[in-house]
Amino acid sequence: LQEKSIDHQLTECNLWDKSNKIFTADVALELPILIKDKILVADVGAISEYLEETYYLHPLIGASPLARIDVRRIANWFNTKFYAEVTQLILHEKIVSYFTKTKEPSSSLIRVAKQNIYPHLDYMTHWIKQRKWLAAEKLTLADIAAASQLSVLDYLGDVPWDYSHHVREWYAIIKSRPSFRAILNDYIPGFNPSNHYANLDF
Amino acid sequence: LQEKSIDHQLTECNLWDKSNKIFTADVALELPILIKDKILVADVGAISEYLEETYYLHPLIGASPLARIDVRRIANWFNTKFYAEVTQLILHEKIVSYFTKTKEPSSSLIRVAKQNIYPHLDYMTHWIKQRKWLAAEKLTLADIAAASQLSVLDYLGDVPWDYSHHVREWYAIIKSRPSFRAILNDYIPGFNPSNHYANLDF
Repeated sequence: LQEKSIDHQLTECNLWDKSNKIFTADVALELPILIKDKILVADVGAISEYLEETYYLHPLIGASPLARIDVRRIANWFNTKFYAEVTQLILHEKIVSYFTKTKEPSSSLIRVAKQNIYPHLDYMTHWIKQRKWLAAEKLTLADIAAASQLSVLDYLGDVPWDYSHHVREWYAIIKSRPSFRAILNDYIPGFNPSNHYANLDF
Repeated sequence: LQEKSIDHQLTECNLWDKSNKIFTADVALELPILIKDKILVADVGAISEYLEETYYLHPLIGASPLARIDVRRIANWFNTKFYAEVTQLILHEKIVSYFTKTKEPSSSLIRVAKQNIYPHLDYMTHWIKQRKWLAAEKLTLADIAAASQLSVLDYLGDVPWDYSHHVREWYAIIKSRPSFRAILNDYIPGFNPSNHYANLDF
């Protein structure tokens, strides 16, 4: 939203808080949800395409069908594959289990997730070596999708930055963008961010 | 492709067959892949959007940004959420383990997947009660995405059709479409389809 200069207001929701009115208004527990002029848009892919189609300023998906192929492919990769194999496991074991007090975190699942990140860093390196950003010569939705996943893990200190200097340099540039500033000030009660989390020169 | 009247040729690929040239041509093992005029498009979402943008006949995502919200949301739901919670588990335990001979199928994982299908059938029922098809008054990508998942499970006899007559009637109409005929003739060596699999009146 910030990258497209769209005025907005963020509201924090927790998937485990089923009394939240936002969930009872809809059929499924899905986050994020965009609400605009009483229109509810769920699903991160549907939200991104809707914003791209209705706000022409600062396009983030690409200028032609051909350019949009890799943007969508790589954005979906991070929103679904990376999320399922890495972020979801770590988030669930470390954060959700802490807040819902349902069970002790599984250190073996966390270990699996931390191993799973390496092929994804290789995947990123493959693209970044070819062009300035993940999917094009300029920042696109693919970079935002990837950086969102990595920033969550980086907060918890779970990104092995030494593994790929390509990824590290790419992320340093993302971090310096004005749109990323609020994210670097995020704070999860009960969890301190890693030392370098908000550090632009990490 | 058939619903959009696009001439095409299908090639069978198995994700576990890493010597397949289609995989060495690209960075990641992803299926399906669309190849058109030497352009490679991976990721089912990127493929769908690319086809919608380049073939104007028989649109399947919707005529306006507003109409496209639910189509994309529901299509993504089945391509990712339903797939991860139901199809992937059953496919992996029953089919992939059979062909790769890596391990015995886990009956407890299959049981979990078969339980997981019920909230998804509720989700479908919610939408079908409101309109003729899942996301609109006409067939869209959302129906194709949902029917693709269900047909895989139905082949193996793993859809509890008695649970929702709304879903059952919706699927009966899908099955009768010319585009579905080839799918109903599919055959997986070593696995016979369920008795009603190709039966239009099941």
